[in-house]
Amino acid sequence: MSDTTRTNRTAALLDAIDEARLWRRHMDLGAIGATPKGGVNRQALSPEEARGRRLIADWAKELGFTLTVDPVGNLFIRREGTEPNLDPVVTGSHIDSQPTGGKFDGAYGVLAGFEVLEALERAGIETRRPLVVAAWLNEEGSRFMPGCSGSAAFTGKISEADALDIQDRDGIVARDCLPEMIAATPEAEQIGLGFPIHAYIENHIEQGPRLEEAELPVGVVTSIQGMHRYEIDVRGDEAHAGTTPIALRKDAFKSAIDIAKALEELMHDPDDVIRFTIGRFETKPGSPNVVPGHVHFTIDFRHPDQDLLMDRGGRIEEVAKAHAGPCDVKVKRISAGAPVAFPDEMVATVRAAAEEAGHPYMEMPSGAGHDAGLLAPVCPVAMIFVPCEKGISHNEAENALPGDLHKGTQVLGLALMKLAG
Amino acid sequence: MSDTTRTNRTAALLDAIDEARLWRRHMDLGAIGATPKGGVNRQALSPEEARGRRLIADWAKELGFTLTVDPVGNLFIRREGTEPNLDPVVTGSHIDSQPTGGKFDGAYGVLAGFEVLEALERAGIETRRPLVVAAWLNEEGSRFMPGCSGSAAFTGKISEADALDIQDRDGIVARDCLPEMIAATPEAEQIGLGFPIHAYIENHIEQGPRLEEAELPVGVVTSIQGMHRYEIDVRGDEAHAGTTPIALRKDAFKSAIDIAKALEELMHDPDDVIRFTIGRFETKPGSPNVVPGHVHFTIDFRHPDQDLLMDRGGRIEEVAKAHAGPCDVKVKRISAGAPVAFPDEMVATVRAAAEEAGHPYMEMPSGAGHDAGLLAPVCPVAMIFVPCEKGISHNEAENALPGDLHKGTQVLGLALMKLAG
Repeated sequence: MSDTTRTNRTAALLDAIDEARLWRRHMDLGAIGATPKGGVNRQALSPEEARGRRLIADWAKELGFTLTVDPVGNLFIRREGTEPNLDPVVTGSHIDSQPTGGKFDGAYGVLAGFEVLEALERAGIETRRPLVVAAWLNEEGSRFMPGCSGSAAFTGKISEADALDIQDRDGIVARDCLPEMIAATPEAEQIGLGFPIHAYIENHIEQGPRLEEAELPVGVVTSIQGMHRYEIDVRGDEAHAGTTPIALRKDAFKSAIDIAKALEELMHDPDDVIRFTIGRFETKPGSPNVVPGHVHFTIDFRHPDQDLLMDRGGRIEEVAKAHAGPCDVKVKRISAGAPVAFPDEMVATVRAAAEEAGHPYMEMPSGAGHDAGLLAPVCPVAMIFVPCEKGISHNEAENALPGDLHKGTQVLGLALMKLAG
Repeated sequence: MSDTTRTNRTAALLDAIDEARLWRRHMDLGAIGATPKGGVNRQALSPEEARGRRLIADWAKELGFTLTVDPVGNLFIRREGTEPNLDPVVTGSHIDSQPTGGKFDGAYGVLAGFEVLEALERAGIETRRPLVVAAWLNEEGSRFMPGCSGSAAFTGKISEADALDIQDRDGIVARDCLPEMIAATPEAEQIGLGFPIHAYIENHIEQGPRLEEAELPVGVVTSIQGMHRYEIDVRGDEAHAGTTPIALRKDAFKSAIDIAKALEELMHDPDDVIRFTIGRFETKPGSPNVVPGHVHFTIDFRHPDQDLLMDRGGRIEEVAKAHAGPCDVKVKRISAGAPVAFPDEMVATVRAAAEEAGHPYMEMPSGAGHDAGLLAPVCPVAMIFVPCEKGISHNEAENALPGDLHKGTQVLGLALMKLAG
């Protein structure tokens, strides 16, 4: 391939990546599970997710791309390469959302990948390697905990059974919801779990304020911070709110908030790098005139340094027990995702693509976890961030600019074309 | 009526009140909505409550008692008096339960009243005044807040529309559940709201530990402490748990527990007479990796002194606002039930009945609220307590002794017979 051909292909691809089409697709997908406040509620394995997959499958059909689905419900859209037996280059993200989520978290990675495939197709540009857009199942983990179960099963971090046996809060099992997902795209060939990947790049909104503050359209992601998850159970005794003296109560709520306050102190960080969040806190039986007998809460704890995560996290149980008062407390660590550093050559590829596309960028770590972190042990990975308004995410007010989404997709396109040859 | 006749009637009634039958009825009613841990979940206006009403109606039918139901769903069982136009003497309580409630709370008052009617019937004892057993709707207020809506509407404290328009947490309106309740007892004549009552006595388990500790089977209740209810809304901003620095968060959970701790301090009482309970505490959206944007919680605040309730309760809002951090907080008082003192002559009637039945007793205030408190403005009221195991109530482990239930019913029987003439 001559330098001229390369330059022509680059220019053709940059031209073919269509800002208006990309934005429209975000709006079309965002209409499925749309909430009154402008966000989406399209939780994993819901009828809304099934409808979202159907919509994307329809677009794929029009362009002649092929679909496959694996046993845990990950969906793949494939544009064939000139050497079909080579390992594919994969991009993508997820289309499940938080219960009060936004239109861009996850969706952008899938739609940016799709836009690159469509632009290549419309521009008549062939690649040696096949290109695949993945929509990983259950990244969010808001309905089925823990999240990233689709990519975790794909890479063998958890078993197929583990991915299928997770339950939501109503006791509904993922396995029982899966047929509806599969049925949404009957044309998708069912394949086995996992396949070799040449390289993986995931586009995503930053979900933080740094790019917007720096007025840069692109973030070249160098790593993902570690994330540990805990579940805490506090058990006391239900009692009548009108008759039981405070001294005789075993009030699970009172103990649980003492524990929560003590954990806030344990996790206090003058540099504000530790991310410590109690996002779910359930008080039972939840009746105004009954002293609570049971509280269940979650801890989401992140930091770029695995040693700090292990040390500080290892003290959660002792602190909880010391502040449980008359109640019993159980602490369970349910995941301990280590920080992930992306390979230098992948970071360099994305950086070069940003320069070639002419979009200013900064290098940055990812504060959020992503499917890319799960893929990292099995293939070289990278990520591309674009700004989101005020850094707001996991929120119905989540927003991004069409121009930024477009620029990030152009960088993705050049990087994928390079990797796919 | 000669002294001899009176003594004969007393002896005949005491004999006719049947301990085994009364216990069996508690077990039969407790089987409806039974929970695995031995309690009941028979919440207001549920299919379980409808089945409970049907069961009691069947018993009433066998004995020839008549049934009526009013527009808000209060159910009445009437044994006619020799002078049917006199105002009736009423007894009763409620058969709705907490979601994890016991077999005796409420049910005992209805079944004790029914046992007195049955004993009078079987012993062939007539009374001048009609005797009525009331099953008041929605005493607990665990599903539909606030509770005692049936007796409150009966006495005109709230309007019929207010009682019917209350919603549960799923937005289900009481009005829409009522037809199922009414349909459970089609033989019940529909009557207007409210009728004159000559006197009202309610039997209930103590729901506290005092009678058991004193080894006394009967409590002669002199008053009901005041109960004020508040709802607190804390609003912040949802944000991503992995990317949002603590300093930039408006974490509604963090603010809400700071408020809760400050309110605990405000309500601290070295004498342990104040009853302060946060029983419902809802964190939204409730996803482990989303900083909570909204917390809603309830306060149940009781004391025998209305001035203390007003003064201390009046400071809740300022304390909440002072500890809300970056969040907004709204405080709403939703009820302010004043303490109720029972008329001396009613207390004396119950005391005399306990002495006549030969059951040792103590006089005591009620820590819990009851329908009797709502009836107090419209007629003379009294209450009779019996011990419950370890004072445990609003709990599936709630328990009482057949002998104590029987003794309390004997006291009720003599008091009702005296009042009904």
